Amino acid sequence: MNDYQKLVSHFKKISRYKHLEAICGWDQAAVMPSGGYQARAESMAELSVHLHQLLNEPQLADWFENAKNQELSSSHTASLKEMKRQWQHASVLPESLVQAKSLVGSKCEHDWRIQRGDNDWQGFSKNFAKVVTLSQEEAQIRAQTSGLTPYDAMLDLYEPGTTTKSLDILFNNVKTWLPDLIEKINEKQQSEHFVAPQGVYPEAQQKQLGLDVMKMLGFDFNHGRLDVSMHPFCGGVPSDVRITTRYDDQDFVQSLMGIVHETGHARYEQGLPSSTGGLPVDAARSMGIHESQSLFFEMQLGRSKAFIKHLAPMAGAAFEQANSTVFENDNFYKLYTRVSPGFIRVDADEVTYPAHVILRYEIERDLMNGVITYKDIPDLWDQKMRGYLGLSTKGNYTNGCMQDIHWTDGSFGYFPSYTLGAMYAAQFMSAMNNACDVTCAIEQKDFSPIFKWLGENIWSKGSSLSTDELVKSATGETLNANYFKTHLENRYL
Amino acid sequence: MNDYQKLVSHFKKISRYKHLEAICGWDQAAVMPSGGYQARAESMAELSVHLHQLLNEPQLADWFENAKNQELSSSHTASLKEMKRQWQHASVLPESLVQAKSLVGSKCEHDWRIQRGDNDWQGFSKNFAKVVTLSQEEAQIRAQTSGLTPYDAMLDLYEPGTTTKSLDILFNNVKTWLPDLIEKINEKQQSEHFVAPQGVYPEAQQKQLGLDVMKMLGFDFNHGRLDVSMHPFCGGVPSDVRITTRYDDQDFVQSLMGIVHETGHARYEQGLPSSTGGLPVDAARSMGIHESQSLFFEMQLGRSKAFIKHLAPMAGAAFEQANSTVFENDNFYKLYTRVSPGFIRVDADEVTYPAHVILRYEIERDLMNGVITYKDIPDLWDQKMRGYLGLSTKGNYTNGCMQDIHWTDGSFGYFPSYTLGAMYAAQFMSAMNNACDVTCAIEQKDFSPIFKWLGENIWSKGSSLSTDELVKSATGETLNANYFKTHLENRYL
Repeated sequence: MNDYQKLVSHFKKISRYKHLEAICGWDQAAVMPSGGYQARAESMAELSVHLHQLLNEPQLADWFENAKNQELSSSHTASLKEMKRQWQHASVLPESLVQAKSLVGSKCEHDWRIQRGDNDWQGFSKNFAKVVTLSQEEAQIRAQTSGLTPYDAMLDLYEPGTTTKSLDILFNNVKTWLPDLIEKINEKQQSEHFVAPQGVYPEAQQKQLGLDVMKMLGFDFNHGRLDVSMHPFCGGVPSDVRITTRYDDQDFVQSLMGIVHETGHARYEQGLPSSTGGLPVDAARSMGIHESQSLFFEMQLGRSKAFIKHLAPMAGAAFEQANSTVFENDNFYKLYTRVSPGFIRVDADEVTYPAHVILRYEIERDLMNGVITYKDIPDLWDQKMRGYLGLSTKGNYTNGCMQDIHWTDGSFGYFPSYTLGAMYAAQFMSAMNNACDVTCAIEQKDFSPIFKWLGENIWSKGSSLSTDELVKSATGETLNANYFKTHLENRYL
Repeated sequence: MNDYQKLVSHFKKISRYKHLEAICGWDQAAVMPSGGYQARAESMAELSVHLHQLLNEPQLADWFENAKNQELSSSHTASLKEMKRQWQHASVLPESLVQAKSLVGSKCEHDWRIQRGDNDWQGFSKNFAKVVTLSQEEAQIRAQTSGLTPYDAMLDLYEPGTTTKSLDILFNNVKTWLPDLIEKINEKQQSEHFVAPQGVYPEAQQKQLGLDVMKMLGFDFNHGRLDVSMHPFCGGVPSDVRITTRYDDQDFVQSLMGIVHETGHARYEQGLPSSTGGLPVDAARSMGIHESQSLFFEMQLGRSKAFIKHLAPMAGAAFEQANSTVFENDNFYKLYTRVSPGFIRVDADEVTYPAHVILRYEIERDLMNGVITYKDIPDLWDQKMRGYLGLSTKGNYTNGCMQDIHWTDGSFGYFPSYTLGAMYAAQFMSAMNNACDVTCAIEQKDFSPIFKWLGENIWSKGSSLSTDELVKSATGETLNANYFKTHLENRYL
């Protein structure tokens, strides 16, 4: 066995442990009873340490050194590059930090589930202070070894190639036109009337409708499931993709489109190449590209006029209210394209969404770079929310800085992915429209050209190309935020 | 850290990996989509190997040798003994055998889920032949190092201290009186009339009833769940106990009492000591003692006249048929104490059940000892079923030798636990009756004296005593099968 093959064998072993981590992680979020958390946290921390050790075995350095000099095919070269990326990310951190962060993160996330409802910033901040300290320590270490700034070093975990410099340019540009756009849309929509859902939408019927929509969107139930969790997500492994939602029996709107969103994530996972058996090169390219798929499904496809024409009658039939005005096509479309500044990011429309992301980006950037401390967050949150969306969160932690799960386990550097994803999705739709008549396909309820384009250009590529290469090969150019702006203007003005 | 403490620390680590194994095992049986099985099997096999390696680290032999000479408290001595037992069981097997058995067992179990429905002995036996070969190899290795016969060496995994010699005496005795007893009961019950459930019992209502019964029986939902699986079981870890059932919307009878049964397992797990954080001494004593708890709940408590008086109206109310004859106390009691020879062990009444166990015991004993091969099983099954229960399974693999899950993953030596459990349960009830008025407690719907007795005498002991010591300390004598016989005669004649 040569050293490249040894690396392959070793990284397959790692992927098998990651499989267990993914399933137990899903379990923790979707089905674990509260009292199970202490023993679970300890077991997950043990597994984190073991994975860290596997990625730090001393022979890996030699194997990488020797494999570099082997003659490898281009696909093996790409595979080697991704293994090396994982190794480099892991090998810089001391084991004690990995274990401490896993334990502190588990506790912070677990307690947050109660504390958020209680608006308990005092209680939350006790755990959160530790998460921040350990994350800053991680960012410092990553910065020292990579030569990046602390925040850029964290960004690199989720969005390889993306930097503060590029994000500042991108987001500062968005900030120049977004407030105006929101105002114009609000003016236009003020004169529009629509009927909001009222009454009761039983969970069982919402779930059945969700399953029907997933089926229509090509979700493979032989390799996945739909469940419930407090914070919807897509987890599991490519051969067993677990998506979740949460139901509110007063309102089906969020859950239904949330399922469309997670189905986009799921189809990416289910469409990844499986040829190498779980090696890094077969994984999703980045969080931004992942989000581009969920947002393609939710925003580009799911909220299009053509798709709503299928969705509205399905929903009406599911709730036995097919004749209700709520489920008429025009009304349903207005319901799903309503723009309204709100507190909660995950409930935000696609126009105000970037404001939420930019707010978090600016805070986590300064937090990781040591410019601010965790104590500054509530005030900064309030100040930026007022500036970007005209809403105050003073004293309202539940709907302010305690609304999200991401920071509880120290995932700093993740938030920009959401808006990058929205931008990529718009760019992909534009390129797809050049290749086929997308609207016509949707109208005919034949989504196969869409899935074919995504499968060939995105899903099947895994991580064989860099993000820039992937986007360029799919669309002819690297990220161009104008497609996103144009999409919003076309749909909403 | 002295060597005893090193062992404690090492076995805590092992228990954390066993936690992951238990949760992913539950997932596989209860929620995993079929297409997820290949990657899961590989991940579980990887974990098996890792656990095997942890139990085989070379320093353990030294630590055990040195700890033997340390001055230890009696509780630490008991803890050391159980760690050593686990270590000895694990360290005799080569890693390659552990891995091969895990992979072959996963495949056999997975394919069995389809093959059983198809009555496909040919297909099944292709996988099963491999499982048997590897299990025989395991039994041989265990026999050589322990000086036991191959089957006794396997028995020791599940029922430490139990031997073929003692089981032969016990079961041959049962065979002298069981057929007569079944005949007498059949004669008596022929003249009894009762109304069987007819109609539809929706799954949602069965589930709610099951949850209500679990609550009444003290199941701690902060540390456990109820789910659905093809083969009902109790899994998870003590801080997060997962029980399952299966629903048939034509018949609530099996599922309801199945939940009572699994709740017995669950309360044992939930009542185990947690002081040492997952060391072997805090685990359940044996499979027979585990089964004694589920059968105490199901047979001694659940099917008693006094308990049925609570259960019948609860069920009637759940299905909105409170006035139906089915749910009248006398009728419900007859329903749950009907004796009728049948093909399926898990559906069998408590009188015919030992016949199913003895059949499997005799076959697996001879299979492990190399007296027969797997090809002999269908004929032997048919012959013994005709002899013990007057039923032929010729050509009927689905309801014959393919009905059970246990052998698919090579768990040979497990079956005797069921009847040992029934016998222990009867003996515990007799002892409990000497300590308090059990019937009066049940009638008053105050189960606390029962749970107190079980908690103090069984659950809280974990594995600190041997089975014989445990039973003697709880009841004043070691296993005495007369209590079981008397219980059956009192209830059914």
